[in-house]
Amino acid sequence: MKVGAKHYRSIWYDYAEQVVKIIDQRWLPHEFRVVDLKSRDDFAVAIRDMWVRGAPLIGATAAFAVAEEMKRDASDASLDETWEVLHETRPTAINLRWALNVMRDRLRDVPESERAATAQALAQQICDEDVECNRQIGLHGLEIIKKIASTKKPGEVVNILTHCNAGWLATVDWGTATSPMYHAAEAGIPVHIWVDETRPRNQGAQLTAWEMDSHGMSHRLIVDNAGGHLMQHGDVDMVIVGTDRTTSHGDVCNKIGTYLKALAARDNNIPFYVALPSPTIDWTLKDGVAEIPIEERDGDEVTKVWGKMEDGRVGQVQISPDGTAGGNPAFDVTPARLVTGLITERGVCEASAEGLAALFPEQVLD
Amino acid sequence: MKVGAKHYRSIWYDYAEQVVKIIDQRWLPHEFRVVDLKSRDDFAVAIRDMWVRGAPLIGATAAFAVAEEMKRDASDASLDETWEVLHETRPTAINLRWALNVMRDRLRDVPESERAATAQALAQQICDEDVECNRQIGLHGLEIIKKIASTKKPGEVVNILTHCNAGWLATVDWGTATSPMYHAAEAGIPVHIWVDETRPRNQGAQLTAWEMDSHGMSHRLIVDNAGGHLMQHGDVDMVIVGTDRTTSHGDVCNKIGTYLKALAARDNNIPFYVALPSPTIDWTLKDGVAEIPIEERDGDEVTKVWGKMEDGRVGQVQISPDGTAGGNPAFDVTPARLVTGLITERGVCEASAEGLAALFPEQVLD
Repeated sequence: MKVGAKHYRSIWYDYAEQVVKIIDQRWLPHEFRVVDLKSRDDFAVAIRDMWVRGAPLIGATAAFAVAEEMKRDASDASLDETWEVLHETRPTAINLRWALNVMRDRLRDVPESERAATAQALAQQICDEDVECNRQIGLHGLEIIKKIASTKKPGEVVNILTHCNAGWLATVDWGTATSPMYHAAEAGIPVHIWVDETRPRNQGAQLTAWEMDSHGMSHRLIVDNAGGHLMQHGDVDMVIVGTDRTTSHGDVCNKIGTYLKALAARDNNIPFYVALPSPTIDWTLKDGVAEIPIEERDGDEVTKVWGKMEDGRVGQVQISPDGTAGGNPAFDVTPARLVTGLITERGVCEASAEGLAALFPEQVLD
Repeated sequence: MKVGAKHYRSIWYDYAEQVVKIIDQRWLPHEFRVVDLKSRDDFAVAIRDMWVRGAPLIGATAAFAVAEEMKRDASDASLDETWEVLHETRPTAINLRWALNVMRDRLRDVPESERAATAQALAQQICDEDVECNRQIGLHGLEIIKKIASTKKPGEVVNILTHCNAGWLATVDWGTATSPMYHAAEAGIPVHIWVDETRPRNQGAQLTAWEMDSHGMSHRLIVDNAGGHLMQHGDVDMVIVGTDRTTSHGDVCNKIGTYLKALAARDNNIPFYVALPSPTIDWTLKDGVAEIPIEERDGDEVTKVWGKMEDGRVGQVQISPDGTAGGNPAFDVTPARLVTGLITERGVCEASAEGLAALFPEQVLD
């Protein structure tokens, strides 16, 4: 999407300079830094130290890492070693493993002399497919926004609340939850985005707000506490969030606090949608609350907050007494009963086993 | 309550030094500073610049301001001028006005020669009555905690979640929502407190966590997003919060985000209690969501976070892009239907017109 006047992806191959470029997201929202990734170590560091984050973007970055390495050494040994080096950077990232497997398996059958070119095309394809998937999500979501807009006076703003960053910075472009918003803006529907700051890591304040600001979208940052009040007073027309994992029955695991917004939406009769690319559906799971283990992260993320200090440098402040420990569950599960619909690349469905099965019949054949 | 080994009130008259002392709360949780208030200006600054905050404490501070001034000049003119000077510091604070009226009206009929002594006694009485009111709230709340503890194995911890600071720092002692917790600890019931950080001003992280740490209570700080997840997983046995204003029908206006916790408590069948001294009941209001105007505060409170920097000084960090504005509703209203009970100084009642009328029949005679 746009950063000022110019369109960016979160990762791209610069054909003029013949180099892979990314946005170093560690400095957002305070600095917009584009950096070149050249050596295999560059790529490994970028993934491990979270210069890039978000499952689709991590996968794309790994794919480009393999492609670049194939230009230097296209041997089987190099291919295997690259798989290992990249996989180690974030061993629990499913999408990282998936992209590395695609690259290795497809390249294995290609003669060494053709591997560099094939790898380059494959990495580009992985990126383009992610963009297309998110574009489809956006088009399906746009229809929902259009319907809501049609219930309003002409020109009246549609207020959309989102939590965390399921934006283009987490994907290659468009994002998932944000894609319908960007599509609505392109379609000329006036939208205003309420951006939950999303403590403790503030992905809303740091990333989603930056996306909205950079693309020129009307938005306001709110604390995670505010959404319920806004819904009570008619200031939210719909909620769209992303998800890290969705069960076959439609339970949605997403950033901590999502569940509270779903409860408030239900209490105020406001539609609550979840946007997701189908690979994030875990067909082996049914009951999200019971079955999905929730990562407990470092309590320091709660007791300390990062940002731009008064002198312009980036640093942190401790908000609590030295003697107080933080508890830090990273995700929560929103039961399917609270979800109005799932927006996938194939269309919108009910958050239920039946709804998902109707859109993805090939997944439930056995 | 205790700060380390020693018991403190949030304001007290030091009879040895013959001076009023307060805890300068601006430095909490990072520094514990006790300061003397001597001149009328000292008192005015302490209230206006929020060295003290919380309705009961502001009232008590104003009462002592009048008492100290009467020692210097006990004339009617001085009395009126003191009323004006103090009232101007926070003109919308109901409790401030109430305390100033009590002092002025009672002192007016007393000979000038006796005003200093009478004022001193009155100020002390206002403090002691607040402490007694909160002690009663604590004893009534203790009965609820005892019942919950009785459903558990002996020695098993009762987990209580609270939002914002309805603690002793906002009153003279005990606090309101915290009073049942302190009483439970004194009664030997093992309690563990989940402290919501309470963005944007982080009263939970700064004040409630400090209270808990200082008094030696088992507690953990969580982001406001976490409570729903903890409730889903059986880690919360009850919620107790305070309130700024309660309608005659039991709707509760409290710090922004309270409503979301009430929704989560209801969804997980967890009791949600509100502790309140009866003067905070607004008998003229029925429907809180419709009738209570919600203060919209400065958006900078959302985009910036205060705390202790790495060099030990207190400062702030900006968490969002320069181009992003914050939306900052300060309170929300929890409908009575989500409130399990109101804990008042007269006992616990249903959050309803009938429940409140039964406890406070004198308020509904007309």
